[in-house]
Amino acid sequence: MINYSVGTGDLKNWIVAETDFSADVLGKSEAIMMLGNGYMGLRSATEEPYIQEKRNLFINGTFNKSQENEVTELPNAADFTQLDIRVDGERFSLEFGETNEYIKQLNLKTAELTRSFVWESPKKKKLQFKFSRFVSLNNMHLIAMKVEVESLSHSVAISFDSGINGQMTNSGAQHFLEGERRILDERFIQLSQKTSESDVEMVFNTVHHFRFNGEPTLPVADKDMQRRKVWMAYEFYLEPNDKLEMEKLSTVHTSRDQVVEQNSMDFEQLRQLSIEELKQYEEKGYDVLFKEHVKAWHDQVWKNYNFKVESDHAFDQLALRFSLYHLTAMQPPSGYEHLGVGAKAMSGEGYKGHTFWDLEIFILPFFIYSNPTAAKSLLTYRYHGLAGARKKAEENGYAGAMYPWEMAWPEDGETTPIWGDIDIVTGAQSKIWSGFIEQHISADIAFAVYQYEQVTGDKEFMERCGYEMIFETAKFWSSRLEWNEERERYEIHNVIGPDEYKEHVSNNAFTNYMAYFNLKLAERYAEQLSAQNPQFLETFDLGDANLDWKTKAEKLYLPEPRTTDLIIPQDDTYLQLPEIDLAKYKNQSKVRMIYRDYNSEQINGIQVTKQADTLLLFYLLEQTFLQQDSRLSSAVKQENYQFYEPRTLHDSSLSLAVHAVIANDLGESDTAYSLFRKACEIDLGEQMNTSDDGIHAAAIGGIWTSAVFGFGGVRFSESTLQINPRLPKQWRRMQFAICWQGTALTLEITHQSLKVTAYDGAVTFETDGKTYHIQNGEIEIQIGREIEINSH
Amino acid sequence: MINYSVGTGDLKNWIVAETDFSADVLGKSEAIMMLGNGYMGLRSATEEPYIQEKRNLFINGTFNKSQENEVTELPNAADFTQLDIRVDGERFSLEFGETNEYIKQLNLKTAELTRSFVWESPKKKKLQFKFSRFVSLNNMHLIAMKVEVESLSHSVAISFDSGINGQMTNSGAQHFLEGERRILDERFIQLSQKTSESDVEMVFNTVHHFRFNGEPTLPVADKDMQRRKVWMAYEFYLEPNDKLEMEKLSTVHTSRDQVVEQNSMDFEQLRQLSIEELKQYEEKGYDVLFKEHVKAWHDQVWKNYNFKVESDHAFDQLALRFSLYHLTAMQPPSGYEHLGVGAKAMSGEGYKGHTFWDLEIFILPFFIYSNPTAAKSLLTYRYHGLAGARKKAEENGYAGAMYPWEMAWPEDGETTPIWGDIDIVTGAQSKIWSGFIEQHISADIAFAVYQYEQVTGDKEFMERCGYEMIFETAKFWSSRLEWNEERERYEIHNVIGPDEYKEHVSNNAFTNYMAYFNLKLAERYAEQLSAQNPQFLETFDLGDANLDWKTKAEKLYLPEPRTTDLIIPQDDTYLQLPEIDLAKYKNQSKVRMIYRDYNSEQINGIQVTKQADTLLLFYLLEQTFLQQDSRLSSAVKQENYQFYEPRTLHDSSLSLAVHAVIANDLGESDTAYSLFRKACEIDLGEQMNTSDDGIHAAAIGGIWTSAVFGFGGVRFSESTLQINPRLPKQWRRMQFAICWQGTALTLEITHQSLKVTAYDGAVTFETDGKTYHIQNGEIEIQIGREIEINSH
Repeated sequence: MINYSVGTGDLKNWIVAETDFSADVLGKSEAIMMLGNGYMGLRSATEEPYIQEKRNLFINGTFNKSQENEVTELPNAADFTQLDIRVDGERFSLEFGETNEYIKQLNLKTAELTRSFVWESPKKKKLQFKFSRFVSLNNMHLIAMKVEVESLSHSVAISFDSGINGQMTNSGAQHFLEGERRILDERFIQLSQKTSESDVEMVFNTVHHFRFNGEPTLPVADKDMQRRKVWMAYEFYLEPNDKLEMEKLSTVHTSRDQVVEQNSMDFEQLRQLSIEELKQYEEKGYDVLFKEHVKAWHDQVWKNYNFKVESDHAFDQLALRFSLYHLTAMQPPSGYEHLGVGAKAMSGEGYKGHTFWDLEIFILPFFIYSNPTAAKSLLTYRYHGLAGARKKAEENGYAGAMYPWEMAWPEDGETTPIWGDIDIVTGAQSKIWSGFIEQHISADIAFAVYQYEQVTGDKEFMERCGYEMIFETAKFWSSRLEWNEERERYEIHNVIGPDEYKEHVSNNAFTNYMAYFNLKLAERYAEQLSAQNPQFLETFDLGDANLDWKTKAEKLYLPEPRTTDLIIPQDDTYLQLPEIDLAKYKNQSKVRMIYRDYNSEQINGIQVTKQADTLLLFYLLEQTFLQQDSRLSSAVKQENYQFYEPRTLHDSSLSLAVHAVIANDLGESDTAYSLFRKACEIDLGEQMNTSDDGIHAAAIGGIWTSAVFGFGGVRFSESTLQINPRLPKQWRRMQFAICWQGTALTLEITHQSLKVTAYDGAVTFETDGKTYHIQNGEIEIQIGREIEINSH
Repeated sequence: MINYSVGTGDLKNWIVAETDFSADVLGKSEAIMMLGNGYMGLRSATEEPYIQEKRNLFINGTFNKSQENEVTELPNAADFTQLDIRVDGERFSLEFGETNEYIKQLNLKTAELTRSFVWESPKKKKLQFKFSRFVSLNNMHLIAMKVEVESLSHSVAISFDSGINGQMTNSGAQHFLEGERRILDERFIQLSQKTSESDVEMVFNTVHHFRFNGEPTLPVADKDMQRRKVWMAYEFYLEPNDKLEMEKLSTVHTSRDQVVEQNSMDFEQLRQLSIEELKQYEEKGYDVLFKEHVKAWHDQVWKNYNFKVESDHAFDQLALRFSLYHLTAMQPPSGYEHLGVGAKAMSGEGYKGHTFWDLEIFILPFFIYSNPTAAKSLLTYRYHGLAGARKKAEENGYAGAMYPWEMAWPEDGETTPIWGDIDIVTGAQSKIWSGFIEQHISADIAFAVYQYEQVTGDKEFMERCGYEMIFETAKFWSSRLEWNEERERYEIHNVIGPDEYKEHVSNNAFTNYMAYFNLKLAERYAEQLSAQNPQFLETFDLGDANLDWKTKAEKLYLPEPRTTDLIIPQDDTYLQLPEIDLAKYKNQSKVRMIYRDYNSEQINGIQVTKQADTLLLFYLLEQTFLQQDSRLSSAVKQENYQFYEPRTLHDSSLSLAVHAVIANDLGESDTAYSLFRKACEIDLGEQMNTSDDGIHAAAIGGIWTSAVFGFGGVRFSESTLQINPRLPKQWRRMQFAICWQGTALTLEITHQSLKVTAYDGAVTFETDGKTYHIQNGEIEIQIGREIEINSH
């Protein structure tokens, strides 16, 4: 049972808590309470093991292919977190004895996980336990743990078996060579391993530190060596009221660390230096290290993003903090430009740590507006991915850069698995087509580059990376288009659009429009450069490409709104498909319910949409130079929303936030708020199994998106900042910081007013059609549009 | 708690039982109750999972190297045995609720594992459970399981999640590619996988079959697909007294199967045929399949070996049956001449499934005397290993065949790991030297060939394999010897003898004498062939080798008994080492206790012996043409036994049986019996952790050895069968069958008499110095030697 109202006073809406333990539903708190700092992600499995646990530590970017016929994935690294605890010789587990005052909580403010309870052993001995843990934001290699035990009733023997366990796998797939184990000074344990195919060297260190009734003590450990594992066994005797404290400090370093690469440090040096570093950490101890970590969270996150929501539902403020917490935990550290963000971030094995379009469309907007440096790093990750994208284009007989549907280490190219689960009807494994024909990703990345450029004005990035990405993706589309002789137009056949319930469709509207945007964008950039910096443009050696983009774009078929009802057909066949009653499958507590009655092939033939598809066009393209296109007018948007919303099952976590923003745009505030809440509940809801494979990184970006782009009404429109807030009636006030073209802004929004404060710079923005300008100052604007406020 | 007195009536001394369940000590019953048929070995983990379980299925010979820097090992194959059972939605586990009438038992006679109990759930619902399981001896690909559940008190919901789980690893090492999953007819699950390096293709099939109150029922399953895993979920509702029965029949086939290799069947054919086969098994059902299996055990094992012991201690009879049970479970199937016997057979991951000298010296004697066909198969395994042995010799700069210390797939050559556990003193990993310098193995194999030839008279094997093995190992020794210019003799420096507490010693007596034996044996065989079949001899192209063997053997230093006390020095330095009080470490319930006070280097410098070393010479060589060598006289044997026994900690499971035989030879009956019991207790003792990594195959051979060679007094002596029984006072009678040069014999032994019956042939044997001859008949001989019998 997850509980969000545990925090009071200063901690109100800061605490994600679980107040009942059940060994049957471990996945939820493991995932949503995960700890991370972008360098690594640590799933919040309990210290004591349970049968159904999923214990994961992922080090970002350490991708490896475990076997020749599998795709590369983020390996589950050696574990530090498991402690085998015995009380009077019996295994400690909350499945035995009696547990009271149980609470497991993630404090979003301090990014600390704690778990405490009073446990009465089957032999009736009472103990107070408290476990604490954080993954440091300022010492990115550090995982700190603390255990506090007090005997409340009897004298009792307690033992901890703890160390480094390199027997971990990704559901059976082993990514590491056996490695070497060392013990230094009888206390510092080191496991050094190399990934089996990608040759990433990793060093895991740990040390234990004890205090007995506040006094440091150094017990002699029994040492247990197993394959890939070094384990220390410590035993203590507690009299009533004796307090025992164990600190376990651990570090991870890899040969892919920036500092290693920059100093061409060899692995043996890294091993030695990392032990020296750990010794320094040990001198400081958990509490001092924790203080530094809390300060980093305050300065870099809470003070910086300054996000406040006053809502009738306290949960909304917590959900926004939850979003910012996880967005920070998934943000690659400064300088780590080879790292992306996996679909589950680093909170589970789902999607193998691969980066999807989730990054550009659902996650990156937050960084573009709130942390442009981090956004640049993530776009540079895609820039490094050009090599793999070119390879994919070439392999498929196309030109330019065809971005992989799933991307891991940038040079790896396409990493989408080829085989999925068994088709229940045929009994054989089903083929995953996304890696072959879900191609809109290249245009999605182009959109993100454009959005970044428009919002930040960062010409340096454009010159170093951005233009090349746009030109290369345009070259791909140009080679990809298929000429329809009969209709005298270019078409795009055999794709999957965002709606993955429709495979092998032709002229998916989203894909065609986005390809068109990509081509036009390249054309515009080429023209701009031709005027401003022709010498630089020449370095791209475009030849006739520009002309080619222009011609092809003009002749590219963009499905028009039907004259009868303004509906843009999702693809060539969608509107001709039979309709069924979708009530059974929509707004259910579980997704993919339709699979209980239909298999993939059958779903392919029904007028049903998995997730925002055509509607995404409005959300994205109205921010661009295509905003004036009559095919994307407000009226068309309105009709298409009315048409597609009922047909969309939101069976992907990438869907709700987009519909929330559009509903809000269209004045459907209640629907927008309801969709926002549902988006929050993808991970924060009551369903205990939905996050088992990991959190939904895109949906977490979507929480911020629906708040800022939806209720906050922030959008860019061709280099102009638009702020057209429309708070839902449940909200009284929202406040947040964004960054526009280098100027830090704070926005404070109520139903009546918008206050914009600019720091260290100037900003021009439009509200309700009027333009405002401020410089190092603030402005408060009354919002014309009135909405009905219910009294409570 | 293991209990051997559960069997009564017909089942007396047939049942190995565990009558208390503890989730803390699972390893014991998992290992000693393992099921196997030589083709595969299935560790007897419980159906429901526990944190500390070790779930293993090994398919003999499917060796694979999981990573480049590891050695090849027997992979832990996909699991069929785990069942996730829920009662009213709660996970069933004996750690919860109340369990009564618990018994887990291996019936040695029927080779069936059963487990039954009455379980009261935490919600107070009472259920009767019975689990049964066997690995078929006549259908070697078949694993059959049955679950019977009866609701005793309330109506109750019960569900089984069951299928094939390919996420298994060897303590983290994954040996299989991901593979392909299929479901046929909605019921037959198939997982096909290939080992990652050795390319062994394997197909795992399973099917479930239900009966509800005796009536077949076919419930619809929820299917759960995970990585490497296909799982069916079946749910039932039981009213009080309703009985539910589930049969789960599973098969394993591999591309290394004889039938596949002989018919060059392709893998897809194998997949299809194996499903057809499983359908046939399903038609028969558990009970019919079980009857066939029991008949095979009766005919091939119990009737055939006909081993009976009348002892004051019923346990002794059970121990002998336990030995025969496991020897049968580890015996490669007929025609599988590429399979050896691992040090833990197929009951655990210990020693990676590798074959050591344990095979020749401790296990093979049983097969040579009891099942010569199986013995031939195992020696042929070593013959196939010549390729790897030649490679090892060449790599080390020697000639001929230098057998690997650890052997896996015959062609693989040396497979001893290079790095062992961390040295507690230095903190670094310690090097395992056996693969480099424990060299007596080549002579041990030569001895086994000789023993096989002497006992069976099988010339065909000798001509096809045996002579070549002897000549090749002799060539190795000849090239291995080091000339000591000063002493004008050949020596052997820098080896490990059987006593592995002494590394890097020179002139280890056992090694030097065995090398000498090997050279002399080659010389003899060459001379015999030269006389009998010179043409055949020429095919070996020996050149001057024969002369070389002769010269080298003559000049090889064989440590003499000291003139003062007749002690043969174990090696050049042993007798000069300081002595310490070994009482703390000898006859303790745990082995390797000396490591608590000393590290390896220190132990190397103390007059202490891990296991039978010099004494082994007497046990082995007195059976050979060296029996007249005065250096191995009875007096020398007596003195060396008195000297080395107190210095031998028996910290290896290969030690006790040898000392038992020698003690018996020397008339120390009580000691002999005590050593025999201790040998039995290596796996059957009260210590619950000693078999965690698997049973001790050599010690299990040793049980038979100490009974037959020790108490039974059976030994060969240069082509003559010797039978000089000396029963311990605890035994009244023993009876067993052996095979001498093609003639089947039954021996019945009491303190007063020896009765020998010969079937289908003739035999000449010596008892107490007299020679007897019988043909298709029996003879009863009074034993002259009287011993004191205590009355009870």
